[in-house]
Amino acid sequence: MLALRTHIENYTSTTLSDNDFALVAAAFTPKRLRRRQYLLQEGEVCKYFAFVLEGALRQYSVNNKGVEHILHFAVENWWIGDRESFVMLTPSPYNIDALEDSHLLLITHPQLQELMLTVPAMTRLVRELDQRNFIATQRRLHASFGSTAEERYAELQQQHPDFLQRFPQHMIASYLGVTAETLSRVRQKATRQ
Amino acid sequence: MLALRTHIENYTSTTLSDNDFALVAAAFTPKRLRRRQYLLQEGEVCKYFAFVLEGALRQYSVNNKGVEHILHFAVENWWIGDRESFVMLTPSPYNIDALEDSHLLLITHPQLQELMLTVPAMTRLVRELDQRNFIATQRRLHASFGSTAEERYAELQQQHPDFLQRFPQHMIASYLGVTAETLSRVRQKATRQ
Repeated sequence: MLALRTHIENYTSTTLSDNDFALVAAAFTPKRLRRRQYLLQEGEVCKYFAFVLEGALRQYSVNNKGVEHILHFAVENWWIGDRESFVMLTPSPYNIDALEDSHLLLITHPQLQELMLTVPAMTRLVRELDQRNFIATQRRLHASFGSTAEERYAELQQQHPDFLQRFPQHMIASYLGVTAETLSRVRQKATRQ
Repeated sequence: MLALRTHIENYTSTTLSDNDFALVAAAFTPKRLRRRQYLLQEGEVCKYFAFVLEGALRQYSVNNKGVEHILHFAVENWWIGDRESFVMLTPSPYNIDALEDSHLLLITHPQLQELMLTVPAMTRLVRELDQRNFIATQRRLHASFGSTAEERYAELQQQHPDFLQRFPQHMIASYLGVTAETLSRVRQKATRQ
């Protein structure tokens, strides 16, 4: 739980009182997932948002040819969940599964709403995360239109070098929206430079 | 200004006091753009966020082959601006220009921050818009990966049928991330059905 406290304090530039943190801690439920277990499966409503204490997960969709497309990775101190389904209670088009044995803290939408009313820092946290997520997602959309495989790889290398070490190549390729062959060629060129 | 008041009240389920609305009105500057004039040019910092009273604009980038990619359209009662550049003061990779003669209300980041402190409904509005924008942008990212031209066209037809009437075909194609030829084929198929 300490990681969550630090995370909230860092992102909101606030010091949480012990009382506020007790309210936060009470709203979350710990959950362990083994590698390959699902937090969310396509067609379900996303009941929980998860804060990652330990491990790694991915959010992806599978198109009607069976090809996986990874939208997001989440590692320690990140959040993962399908925001649209979580808020609107619509069936999710995404799967979220664990890439490593993971330790999560889960919260439901009613619990989060309640917590935002009682702990003002949580409102600031959600606002800050929404803003960052919007910016990050817009960057990815921009990249999906305009940029070459080289540019996408270079941006990932700059923003999240840990991903390149931590996740298998075919998943990195899926995240970048390029084929495994293209990624392999780009990597060889990048290491030669 | 009345349209802005209605917009804030609708999105936040609040009734603004006249005093609060006077603070809101004082923070915005009216601006007229003729068709083809820019609100933002690539490389500039996005100094203003704009609320559209009348007209239509697009946000787009141009890749190094000179191809335009449209990220967003904005019409009456929408907001437009590069959020990342607006918040972080970084040079924007986007252009925003008017597709029709437009009448806007502009606000700077310091003015918006100030307004969020004095008028609580503005904080709720920004949170609501961030959430909707995040969801909409994630949908577009999802579409850019997984879906066919037919699916993208059908989604646009469902979500924003007005866009199909209002904007030229080559811009709709650019927004959907397909070629003009593909769009034309998809449209013919859709109208035959």
